[in-house]
Amino acid sequence: MNKNLIKEFINIAGAEYVLYEEVDRQAYSYDAAVLTPQIPALVVMPATQEQLGKTVKLAYKNSLPITVRGAGTNLSGAVIPSSAESVVILTNRLNRIIEINEQDLYAVVEPGVITSVFAEAVSTHGLFYPPDPGSQTVSTLGGNVALNAGGLRGLKYGVTKDYLMGIEFFDYNGDLIKTGSRTVKCVTGYNLGGLMLSSEGTLGVFSQIILKLVPPPKASKAMMAVYDDINKASETVAAIIAAHIIPCTLEILDKKCLKYVEAYTKAGLPTEADAILLIEVDGNHLQGVEEDAEKVMELCKKCGATNIKVAKDEDEKHKIWEARRNALPALARARPTTVLEDATVPRSKVPAMVAAVNRIAKKYNLEIGTFGHAGDGNLHPTILCDRRDKEEFKRVEAAVDEIFDTALNLQGTLSGEHGIGMAKAKWMEKETNRATIEFSKNLRRALDPKYLFNAGKKIL
Amino acid sequence: MNKNLIKEFINIAGAEYVLYEEVDRQAYSYDAAVLTPQIPALVVMPATQEQLGKTVKLAYKNSLPITVRGAGTNLSGAVIPSSAESVVILTNRLNRIIEINEQDLYAVVEPGVITSVFAEAVSTHGLFYPPDPGSQTVSTLGGNVALNAGGLRGLKYGVTKDYLMGIEFFDYNGDLIKTGSRTVKCVTGYNLGGLMLSSEGTLGVFSQIILKLVPPPKASKAMMAVYDDINKASETVAAIIAAHIIPCTLEILDKKCLKYVEAYTKAGLPTEADAILLIEVDGNHLQGVEEDAEKVMELCKKCGATNIKVAKDEDEKHKIWEARRNALPALARARPTTVLEDATVPRSKVPAMVAAVNRIAKKYNLEIGTFGHAGDGNLHPTILCDRRDKEEFKRVEAAVDEIFDTALNLQGTLSGEHGIGMAKAKWMEKETNRATIEFSKNLRRALDPKYLFNAGKKIL
Repeated sequence: MNKNLIKEFINIAGAEYVLYEEVDRQAYSYDAAVLTPQIPALVVMPATQEQLGKTVKLAYKNSLPITVRGAGTNLSGAVIPSSAESVVILTNRLNRIIEINEQDLYAVVEPGVITSVFAEAVSTHGLFYPPDPGSQTVSTLGGNVALNAGGLRGLKYGVTKDYLMGIEFFDYNGDLIKTGSRTVKCVTGYNLGGLMLSSEGTLGVFSQIILKLVPPPKASKAMMAVYDDINKASETVAAIIAAHIIPCTLEILDKKCLKYVEAYTKAGLPTEADAILLIEVDGNHLQGVEEDAEKVMELCKKCGATNIKVAKDEDEKHKIWEARRNALPALARARPTTVLEDATVPRSKVPAMVAAVNRIAKKYNLEIGTFGHAGDGNLHPTILCDRRDKEEFKRVEAAVDEIFDTALNLQGTLSGEHGIGMAKAKWMEKETNRATIEFSKNLRRALDPKYLFNAGKKIL
Repeated sequence: MNKNLIKEFINIAGAEYVLYEEVDRQAYSYDAAVLTPQIPALVVMPATQEQLGKTVKLAYKNSLPITVRGAGTNLSGAVIPSSAESVVILTNRLNRIIEINEQDLYAVVEPGVITSVFAEAVSTHGLFYPPDPGSQTVSTLGGNVALNAGGLRGLKYGVTKDYLMGIEFFDYNGDLIKTGSRTVKCVTGYNLGGLMLSSEGTLGVFSQIILKLVPPPKASKAMMAVYDDINKASETVAAIIAAHIIPCTLEILDKKCLKYVEAYTKAGLPTEADAILLIEVDGNHLQGVEEDAEKVMELCKKCGATNIKVAKDEDEKHKIWEARRNALPALARARPTTVLEDATVPRSKVPAMVAAVNRIAKKYNLEIGTFGHAGDGNLHPTILCDRRDKEEFKRVEAAVDEIFDTALNLQGTLSGEHGIGMAKAKWMEKETNRATIEFSKNLRRALDPKYLFNAGKKIL
């Protein structure tokens, strides 16, 4: 990149906060997706919202592709630089929690705030921010909005979309656009915040976010139900919802996951089981929660659970959830490459989806472990492989194709929470239609005429 | 309108379903806002989604402004035809509930389905669709989405935005655009459904909507708390939220409203009170609900309620809510013109807002009754007047200006649920900024290049 242009970025952020040596830029060439890295031309780390706006304006004016990055945990390539000319804008220094308002149940944050840091701060005010994506200890709230991040609590508490009250973002002119409010209800102007959700960095650069907070549940009960047949576990999921109990969390791990998680954590998991369900019910009244837990246990037994272990205290509950939160790290140890998908289906189709994934694994002779949010149909079939083995990787790609096809045939969707990024853009038309792709491109072109905001992602 | 063009519309919808005589078109010249009516050129009533798409395509091709109308209950002029050349497209014949899925907790509907008809159908399946705008017995789900309709249950259960899972709509080419899914979590493509929410008919014409359903609460308790000072009522609202109790409903009526509602309903309301709160708590366990109700009553007493009447049964509960639901009809009897506003503030600012409205009423010598959703800060100051009295109406307009200014100064927003329509478009820049208006116009232009979708509404 032209030295004078680099100087202009330095004038905004300071010399320490503009990376131009290749060795420094390399760290920002990839994300958590299994895709080819791309070293950007420059990495800039603004400290303030004002510096952020100026950085966007300068990059756009000079026709540089822009990729905004928080922690880079994205699983679909949304944070891989578009080209060698790209500027990566890091949000990590924009990490201020500006306000936590207990009376009016909202918080105002900068986009680089880490999710779990925010959730912790909120809890010290006696409040609760539920969305808990798997990456929460490192991922940022800006990234959460850009991907409409979900997590384990989605079934009962919703996802990031249900907590976004307002947002300020820079458009391609570097102008600050304001939408939403500190109020629960707001229909002033277009729902631009809604548009920014799951836009994957293609429509604007977030500067400040208003998030809804809720009172925390006062009681909860967690349990693990063990099954000798994964279909019985899936049926239990359906039965719980049919009984109109909405657990805070309702997760599944299959036999393969159990094997790897136990090897990693040595937590005493039932590795002989075909599947386990991890269930947490919560609410505002202990007796109500205990009644719900009783009902859930009855349903598990009725559907064929061979064992049910209820957590006696916080420690045991924590252990149960660690098993789930370690699913991906544990699986990732198995082989050099971990392909994590999140094709999502209506929950009544979870049994069919699970069966299909197993069939696909056999068909392509691949090792696939499935875990995920059984309660909302958002499963994570995880393919353990080595992408350097080109023959095997061809089979992986074919398997992924078939997993998507299956989800679509079951009236599902390509992605429940990880996003489209680069990885899934080519299937978009299959799920929608040509007109939808053209409409989306048209929308994108209006908000990014030079096609610089994360080019090559989301909608091609 | 050219007779040949009328024939083309008739070819789509049938002769009975195209209104071209002026006497027929007049009924579609106004909505519930206090604004000048505009008789459209034509009114078309398609029966199917296919006819709807063809109607949109034909109108757009012939450069006719298009206003989509369900029941016309809009309070900000969003359904008043833009000009004498307008085509009004009625959705009333698109009233099919296509699917109610109990297992996967969603429903698929056409836009002309009436909200309360839908809610009733859902309840026969043992499920619950919470958003309950005041107009629910006549307004349509398509209108609800276009306005992100709220209602009394917004505080606990959210608004239409929290229930929209997917939508299909016709763009300006008459092509069908598909977004969202039958799954709880979906980040495939842009959040176009989110963009359609509160778009007030300016970005596309809805064809089919997927809505989330939830299990119904199993128990509830309703009460009326009476106050000799409206500030004590406002303080009670804050105290309830601070105690982390989120009632299903938390409504306020001031003295003026009480007077008119009692004259209308003769329900035995305490007309000597300065204000009443109508509160309903609900949940899945009777004991928990009773505990919450006890706490709420304590808080009401602590904050100075002079009397609390708890509904003993469904009938009494129904009576309590009728008082609230009759607020607008009762006030509307007082004078020929009822100007209903919904400037919204954070709930901690409700006392200040209420005081300001009373001050403004005195300043401009107007009769203003205030009722509304105290729990979420969405109040409805209602000005009783006669717009034929030009001098008085000048004072009304000045008062409305000042109500908006006050809301904005209290970090609130122009509209919590009624929309911007024609009525509030000029204040949009005050709440946001010039760049936001230009950004929105740019967006709108991309999705409606000929400026035909409800021209003159939302963003000018």
